[in-house]
Amino acid sequence: MQHEQIEALLVTHPADVRYLCGFTGSNAALGITAARAVMFTDGRYTGQARQETVGARVVIASKSAQREACAWLESSGADRCFFDPDHTTIAELARFRQFLSGARRRSFFHPLAKPLVLNLRLLKDAEELKLIRQSAQLGVRLYEALLPQIQSGVAEAEIAGQLEFNARLHGADGMSFETIVAGGSRSALPHGRATGMPLPRRGFVTLDFGVILKGYCSDMTRTVFLGRATRQERFTYDAVREAQLAAVESVKPGVRCEDVDQAARSVLRKAGLAQYFTHSTGHGVGLEIHEPPRIGAAQEQILVPGMVITIEPGAYIPGKFGVRIEDMVAVNKNGAEVLTPAPAAWMQL
Amino acid sequence: MQHEQIEALLVTHPADVRYLCGFTGSNAALGITAARAVMFTDGRYTGQARQETVGARVVIASKSAQREACAWLESSGADRCFFDPDHTTIAELARFRQFLSGARRRSFFHPLAKPLVLNLRLLKDAEELKLIRQSAQLGVRLYEALLPQIQSGVAEAEIAGQLEFNARLHGADGMSFETIVAGGSRSALPHGRATGMPLPRRGFVTLDFGVILKGYCSDMTRTVFLGRATRQERFTYDAVREAQLAAVESVKPGVRCEDVDQAARSVLRKAGLAQYFTHSTGHGVGLEIHEPPRIGAAQEQILVPGMVITIEPGAYIPGKFGVRIEDMVAVNKNGAEVLTPAPAAWMQL
Repeated sequence: MQHEQIEALLVTHPADVRYLCGFTGSNAALGITAARAVMFTDGRYTGQARQETVGARVVIASKSAQREACAWLESSGADRCFFDPDHTTIAELARFRQFLSGARRRSFFHPLAKPLVLNLRLLKDAEELKLIRQSAQLGVRLYEALLPQIQSGVAEAEIAGQLEFNARLHGADGMSFETIVAGGSRSALPHGRATGMPLPRRGFVTLDFGVILKGYCSDMTRTVFLGRATRQERFTYDAVREAQLAAVESVKPGVRCEDVDQAARSVLRKAGLAQYFTHSTGHGVGLEIHEPPRIGAAQEQILVPGMVITIEPGAYIPGKFGVRIEDMVAVNKNGAEVLTPAPAAWMQL
Repeated sequence: MQHEQIEALLVTHPADVRYLCGFTGSNAALGITAARAVMFTDGRYTGQARQETVGARVVIASKSAQREACAWLESSGADRCFFDPDHTTIAELARFRQFLSGARRRSFFHPLAKPLVLNLRLLKDAEELKLIRQSAQLGVRLYEALLPQIQSGVAEAEIAGQLEFNARLHGADGMSFETIVAGGSRSALPHGRATGMPLPRRGFVTLDFGVILKGYCSDMTRTVFLGRATRQERFTYDAVREAQLAAVESVKPGVRCEDVDQAARSVLRKAGLAQYFTHSTGHGVGLEIHEPPRIGAAQEQILVPGMVITIEPGAYIPGKFGVRIEDMVAVNKNGAEVLTPAPAAWMQL
């Protein structure tokens, strides 16, 4: 804050609040000045806030956490207070201003020019990397335990349910996102959430899931085959796998995100599949499932040790089938540490 | 839109997009004018968008769904376009403006004065009520099936996992929110998400959960007792149950939300427990788990048939124990239809 000449900061995005002071409740307003930090929440979280919060005083607001945070910031002596424009709605900012005394309403609040907290979160420290590794490793173990369940006739939702139940038993707080289990022609939907459909006698099954362990998300995708594949199916799988490996190998400090995306895309282009790769190659992961950087076209961000990203190219032939393979990798001094080392070669069940 | 003199509208909040045109993807920008509606999304949703969308043309944006929606709205002939200030961030609005040609940047976008789509969603039609009933009934069946599993020594997370697995097997898309299973002194945390802690030999266990079925959320809470209760524990339970019944009975068309809240609060006040009821009495439920109206102090909104709300008073004695009982009710002509008729009398397991 000193470096950016920020006298006072209002943080309301839950993942940022958790990152800065440890509180995990759904409603929080963290006020920070050069001298002090105060975390405002509501009566539902009285016990939890005191247990979890580190480095900030806890105040249980009687009416609105945001109102009391704004009042505290106004009385802090700061002339200006910054907020995060990516996580503040037009309506919220109007309310924040209403919470101030008249004279300050127009002059006090200013949007941050850069995402101050997200830029800190971009580079994971050793403790965070340890937690992310644990989360990713749990994902791998759950995937391996799930493989025997993947059989023709079993509902996608039952596969997802088994996975989620095991995640719970192994300490996950929950899932990072809605579990994707997409069999047969549904594998052509990149976001085919598990349905009541039975897995087909013949065809791809895409599993894309992640757990939240001690707050940190994991994310991985594997695509397996039930029955006997056609040459086109096998060709597509091998091309996606080659694209995925090429992208993982391209990851090292100093490389631009768009170059990692290109590494995957050019393999699929040579295979004549570029038009079926309809999304970007990956995204950052941490306390949230989607964080910077984005691994896509025109992303000039340079990779730096401490970033954790997914590498997840795919090819989706509409109405027919789709394949996606995804690993989480941590950028380190030498290149990439693959955090989800589950088997990814062609697997016929 | 005609009635509010709105020539053009940009809808980006996923629940609103789903309500208006059926598309369930995570990224969408729906542009609406008097003559046309176009739903813009990205390449991940090519197949799904065409399957799901009703009443709007589907466009798969090559770069950004928001960018193409803004360009389409600008070229629609409308002079002004409205957006939802509750679901548009400061950064998003700045981007929307950048997507326009220079002359329009300052004049084109205006915040809605009222939450137009949310006001439609406030009153559930017959088809929505049918779906909400099904979602609530599934919750009740899952609760009843879970009761035999609630035993001393079983981890909270295992209880939550069983519940969630069964929800999946019975067709739920997922859970409405992070399942709360809070045993013993953790029941004093109103938001005690399930942890690895074993259920105690003696004490309350609070279960607060909901399923999403065909898009509609359910929400219910029951608190049961393991072992033999003290008089204070039993007294607190009965007071919360009485407060909950009083609030349910107060629900009818024409009553203000604050009066329903008072109905619960005054029972707890008479029992000397008002200070331990640290949240509001309830909230609306539908496509989202928290919707208007809020059933709390100073909420002057009048109940109208078609509203669906929760009634969930509680009492939380810090460090000791807590009790909450929650039903979903639909406001109808005569009063309230309880949608979650699971046993709520004192239950000792």
